[in-house]
Amino acid sequence: MDYDALFRSQLDTLRNDGNYRVFAELERTTGAFPRARRYRDGKASDVTVWCSNDYLGMGQNPKVLAAMHEAIDRTGAGAGGTRNISGNTHDHVLLERELADLHGKESALLFTSGYVSNWASLATLGARLPDAVILSDALNHASMIEGIRHARCEKRLWKHNDPKDLERQLRDIAPGRPKIVAFESVYSMDGDISPIEEILDVAEKYGAMTYLDEVHAVGLYGPRGGGVAEERGLADRVTLIEGTLGKAFGVVGGYITGSAALVDFIRSFASGFIFTTSLPPAIAAGARASIAHLKVSQIERQKQREMVRKLRSRLDAMGIPHLPNPSHIVPVMVKDPVKCKMISDILLDDYGIYVQPINYPTVPKGTERLRFTPSPMHTDGDLDHLTRALSDLWSHCALSRAVA
Amino acid sequence: MDYDALFRSQLDTLRNDGNYRVFAELERTTGAFPRARRYRDGKASDVTVWCSNDYLGMGQNPKVLAAMHEAIDRTGAGAGGTRNISGNTHDHVLLERELADLHGKESALLFTSGYVSNWASLATLGARLPDAVILSDALNHASMIEGIRHARCEKRLWKHNDPKDLERQLRDIAPGRPKIVAFESVYSMDGDISPIEEILDVAEKYGAMTYLDEVHAVGLYGPRGGGVAEERGLADRVTLIEGTLGKAFGVVGGYITGSAALVDFIRSFASGFIFTTSLPPAIAAGARASIAHLKVSQIERQKQREMVRKLRSRLDAMGIPHLPNPSHIVPVMVKDPVKCKMISDILLDDYGIYVQPINYPTVPKGTERLRFTPSPMHTDGDLDHLTRALSDLWSHCALSRAVA
Ligand SMILES: Cc1ncc(COP(=O)(O)O)c(C=O)c1O
Ligand SMILES: Cc1ncc(COP(=O)(O)O)c(C=O)c1O
Repeated sequence: MDYDALFRSQLDTLRNDGNYRVFAELERTTGAFPRARRYRDGKASDVTVWCSNDYLGMGQNPKVLAAMHEAIDRTGAGAGGTRNISGNTHDHVLLERELADLHGKESALLFTSGYVSNWASLATLGARLPDAVILSDALNHASMIEGIRHARCEKRLWKHNDPKDLERQLRDIAPGRPKIVAFESVYSMDGDISPIEEILDVAEKYGAMTYLDEVHAVGLYGPRGGGVAEERGLADRVTLIEGTLGKAFGVVGGYITGSAALVDFIRSFASGFIFTTSLPPAIAAGARASIAHLKVSQIERQKQREMVRKLRSRLDAMGIPHLPNPSHIVPVMVKDPVKCKMISDILLDDYGIYVQPINYPTVPKGTERLRFTPSPMHTDGDLDHLTRALSDLWSHCALSRAVA
Repeated sequence: MDYDALFRSQLDTLRNDGNYRVFAELERTTGAFPRARRYRDGKASDVTVWCSNDYLGMGQNPKVLAAMHEAIDRTGAGAGGTRNISGNTHDHVLLERELADLHGKESALLFTSGYVSNWASLATLGARLPDAVILSDALNHASMIEGIRHARCEKRLWKHNDPKDLERQLRDIAPGRPKIVAFESVYSMDGDISPIEEILDVAEKYGAMTYLDEVHAVGLYGPRGGGVAEERGLADRVTLIEGTLGKAFGVVGGYITGSAALVDFIRSFASGFIFTTSLPPAIAAGARASIAHLKVSQIERQKQREMVRKLRSRLDAMGIPHLPNPSHIVPVMVKDPVKCKMISDILLDDYGIYVQPINYPTVPKGTERLRFTPSPMHTDGDLDHLTRALSDLWSHCALSRAVA
């Protein structure tokens, strides 16, 4: 049997649909955020990154780097084991304490990534709570979808950001059954934010626990970077808050926070937590420094918001259509995978501007987009250069402009 | 509904069965491997670690640490995105090249962990190859089991390390169906090694592709640390070799290697690869330095084997029963979860020796054990101290000795 032929035929389909992905090869330069080197065909050139999820540039914050250096010197590279077998380090314990405090919860639990924290936690809750139902927002992230699928309990989708539809579904479910309402705060592709309070009201009314993914909000919202739930004073009403250390905190890893019993339950039963090498102590130390910094510093969040506002008003002035939303994410809709990739290629090759085309399966087919994430370190000069380039391209490629 | 009460009742069951896990809190000390600080109740004491999966102490190798420091200074903390969206760095690309070379394959693909590489790759192969069957060794690791479960294709278990049983199963399957034979080289809890050649013979006879987890072998076996398949000259016959960067290589992360088409297929379709922040460049750089070192240096492997041999002969001399196996893993069977934890607690508290009790669900109930992993850095003095402690304990706890 020719397995490679089977693989190639599915790859060909991807290519024909314009959905085959080519990764840009980058090397960020410490101290020069958002600048990076781009490698291609053995040559390197300079680019400005406009699509990083290191939203605040904390991945180059000197305190974060110093904490990582210190931990490597003190304790080495890896953890050397799973959390249970020799890989539970002092740095992990300190980071979990910091995370519990960040969200005002009793406990926190670290995972190797936000993906794994969602997948493992939802799979464990759904599978182990007897006769559970998971009620999932229709636009939840792949990691949540896969976790729910893995749980093999009853699953119900409710209309995106629609507490009324959630209520209709909850009403149908026998009161004695455990119910888990799973949703996000900031949805990363459209940049919309969920009506957390209304969702909590409904969930509480029907005795459901709530599972909130704040991956695109931690570090960015709330006076201490505790996310949208903190900003809105709702964190104590959410049963479980999940987050990442790989986006605004600039490092890598994922976590959940909640009651001591809840966290101990996931710790004790989640395969994806138990059977894997724990994160390097230096990663934990770097993440902890990042969280601690963003708990007290407002300047990164302020400057980021300013740059987001500026980009939006420039796009508006040029009539380039972008999805309106209350977050830090600026999606410019192209709605065609081939055009989307073409624009991105020209920006990269001719203008030194890197913004990855977002195609299927990350977004539905027909909603292909360029997703801009302005940071506190982008300058007005960067913005001028970007908007001039976009204006050129919108003219050349006969893309539609919004009616002024 | 009182969710915490539901969590607590399942935790109580664990506790009553003696399977509740308490993590030892450790801090390894760079340059003093296998020594670590142990924290408890706000106090710290010194311990010698005898159960690390940093099998060769590479987590403290100066070249590895230097590579990490250099990468942090050059390029910062995290990658800042998924591989597709701004997180594909030069360091990732170089590491994947190194990994493909290590196993003599066309391509390699990095994941955030070995767990995720198994889960995501098997789930993708099983789900996307039309009408596939996965034939899984009965003792495969949790990450493979969960991946196969997630694939939702037909699954067949074959008797552990039994190519004849595998053949019986393969004979039954229609020739036109894609078949994936999934197994490990070194099984980490018993330390036995699979008959790779016989398994390949059978798989090839029936046109099955082979998926080999070398997580506990990479860095340790073969003249370049390419694993047992390399040692036995069989790597080119294995379709896909999977490994980790978190054990013998001393850092963190996982990977697969195989043909360019196979790797591109997993890259393009595996949710667990696509929808997650990529590893920090410094992790990739550290792992690459570790692999490069172990490709040419034999001394770590030699010294480790010597220490393994010495520990085994001491245990034999004292009549302490351990599972015989051809690998670097020395399981001392206790066969009772409560006794196993008790011995481990006494070793830790009274002797400063850390060896984690291995209980359910990592091993089947009734096969609880202490799993020793001697390293090149353990000294004869460490060995004397350990074996005296074990001898004391075996006398005090009335544990059975092997008949001399
Ligand atoms: C909503 C959401 N949840 C979880 C994740 C996964 O987090 P991580 O990148 O830490 O794996 C992502 C993106 O990567 C995400 O967009
Ligand atoms: C056989 C096997 N495969 C895969 C894994 C997972 O690798 P990682 O620790 O890199 O997640 C482990 C242990 O952790 C293992 O024992």
